[in-house]
Amino acid sequence: MPHGSLVAITRRAAAAALLLLAMLAASVPALAQGASPGADPLPSWNDGQARQAILDFVNKTTEQASPDFVPADDRVATFDQDGTLWVEQPSYTQFIFCLERVPAVVAKRPELAKVEPFKTVLSGNKEAIAKLTMKQLETIAVATLTGMSVDDFNAEAVKWTSSAKDKRFGRLYTELVYQPMLEVMAYLRANGFKTYIVTGGGQDFVRSYSQRVYGVPVEQVVGTAGGTKYGYGKDGKPFLTKEPKLLLNDNNAGKAEGIHLMIGRRPHAAFGNSTGDQQMLEYTKGGDGARLSVLVLHDDAEREFAYGPAQGLPATKVGTFTQALYDEAKKAGWTVISMKNDWKRIFPFDK
Amino acid sequence: MPHGSLVAITRRAAAAALLLLAMLAASVPALAQGASPGADPLPSWNDGQARQAILDFVNKTTEQASPDFVPADDRVATFDQDGTLWVEQPSYTQFIFCLERVPAVVAKRPELAKVEPFKTVLSGNKEAIAKLTMKQLETIAVATLTGMSVDDFNAEAVKWTSSAKDKRFGRLYTELVYQPMLEVMAYLRANGFKTYIVTGGGQDFVRSYSQRVYGVPVEQVVGTAGGTKYGYGKDGKPFLTKEPKLLLNDNNAGKAEGIHLMIGRRPHAAFGNSTGDQQMLEYTKGGDGARLSVLVLHDDAEREFAYGPAQGLPATKVGTFTQALYDEAKKAGWTVISMKNDWKRIFPFDK
Repeated sequence: MPHGSLVAITRRAAAAALLLLAMLAASVPALAQGASPGADPLPSWNDGQARQAILDFVNKTTEQASPDFVPADDRVATFDQDGTLWVEQPSYTQFIFCLERVPAVVAKRPELAKVEPFKTVLSGNKEAIAKLTMKQLETIAVATLTGMSVDDFNAEAVKWTSSAKDKRFGRLYTELVYQPMLEVMAYLRANGFKTYIVTGGGQDFVRSYSQRVYGVPVEQVVGTAGGTKYGYGKDGKPFLTKEPKLLLNDNNAGKAEGIHLMIGRRPHAAFGNSTGDQQMLEYTKGGDGARLSVLVLHDDAEREFAYGPAQGLPATKVGTFTQALYDEAKKAGWTVISMKNDWKRIFPFDK
Repeated sequence: MPHGSLVAITRRAAAAALLLLAMLAASVPALAQGASPGADPLPSWNDGQARQAILDFVNKTTEQASPDFVPADDRVATFDQDGTLWVEQPSYTQFIFCLERVPAVVAKRPELAKVEPFKTVLSGNKEAIAKLTMKQLETIAVATLTGMSVDDFNAEAVKWTSSAKDKRFGRLYTELVYQPMLEVMAYLRANGFKTYIVTGGGQDFVRSYSQRVYGVPVEQVVGTAGGTKYGYGKDGKPFLTKEPKLLLNDNNAGKAEGIHLMIGRRPHAAFGNSTGDQQMLEYTKGGDGARLSVLVLHDDAEREFAYGPAQGLPATKVGTFTQALYDEAKKAGWTVISMKNDWKRIFPFDK
């Protein structure tokens, strides 16, 4: 069949191009770490089990002669975001975005100023805000994340993430990404893996910065996703409005389900840090051949945060890394990263 | 910021690799049509407005000096499947797949043999089958497309599409693809576009053959999608079961909404053939700069089918190309393909 052979040739050409990309990457200084055989692909990592497990996995899955070789088309790695790629304490960044958008929403809908939970948010009373119920937080999410066009929302999110700063570090939230994980993503990409973000955060929110912060294109962001509604503007041009209708709750089992919906392949590698990532890590490890499931343990209060409660670390409202999850990781052969021991640097701006 | 520059360099490396892919493709005989400047990228097309519109669009969006230049990352082209990439008459292929799966389903659930609509399907009475209501067809779809693991479903679909044949042409359904459209897909890919299938058909069904038939990887198939349910097998390994829960009805406005959900970018080019594609074509054309919206008109009863009812062609149950849609196409500057006049060959097996 002519078109069959055309497809076969196209695939060979694509594979050859990937090889060329790897060769090319080796000749680009800043990427040499991820591609040239002599350089260290993970310079911000200390020697140890975690670093070695990542290197072994890539070697096993990309060497043609390996029994665990994975064809380039099938190479998929998924990364949770909050607590895995960037800081999630003391609150999820998107939650702060929602709270900080409340004044703008109330300016357009003044009737909300006297209504809870908006009244509490506007008061700025941190203790009261910390006590808002899940249902009240949902009300805030609906008011701040829906009702506008997808383009307007994107512009708002880009504007906010380009200026809003974290108080403890005095840095843009988008700077509080983990340098060792950026290196893992670049290393996997240099070896033909497609890197996806699979986040409980809002898909459209994370898409607004995924390319510039992580080098992940918007179509490789799987997140908690709401519906949109097709309509026409005054100029007759069609646009989409964000609707308060949940299509995918990309947490827990929803992460494995979201991966099937949006990617259609079982990942060969997955990275997470909390019980919300448990099923994604199980689903990944449950596949045939070499699979890498990795948990990030936040045990570095000095450079970042220490919370758990695995290994006696304090419990927090976000990023639940329970003892049971830690035990499952050990039993199932997942890799556990100790931020304190495995990472030389935490952030790109660290010396 | 080190990672920012790394991202920039990665993007430049990717762009360079795309260029290398194009150069490489030019050196592969079967792809030369899509990449080398001297050869015809669309050899199965007759000269005419449609062919010229496609060539002009690619030139305008890929020449660096063009005011309509589109960066490689943003190049997205979407294709309806039924009636746009392959034959949809006398029935959608997936509908035939569902009907032909009924005996296997009844073998496992014998109580269905005496219940409608299964009784009618098993009778083989074509007239009665043609009269099944939409609700009855949904019952058949649920019974044949859900309740099994995603891997089992995929295996069933691969098996069926590798052997089931169309009666009129005596060919596998997967051979009844339009050679001129395969050329357009290859041509767009050679010019850095990501080609997506955006189909009203079942996402998992189309994924089961998208790579081998169209060169489209599973993650670039957007279709009508049901939910899945995460669970554990007897061996303790996690797997996903296909559920009778509709997440995305990828027809009409659902196509534009599905494109946002799964791709996150407004396409620069879209191809369709029926009222179910109207919003996708409007949404595409509604973007800034050069946009290409294309409608396939089935006006070749001899080599394929002629139906409409645009231009007085007979109406059919599937693939509704109405006069209103044709009028909108003309008014909005969409390109209309006449299969009879624009295509030298219809199928890859045509002389």
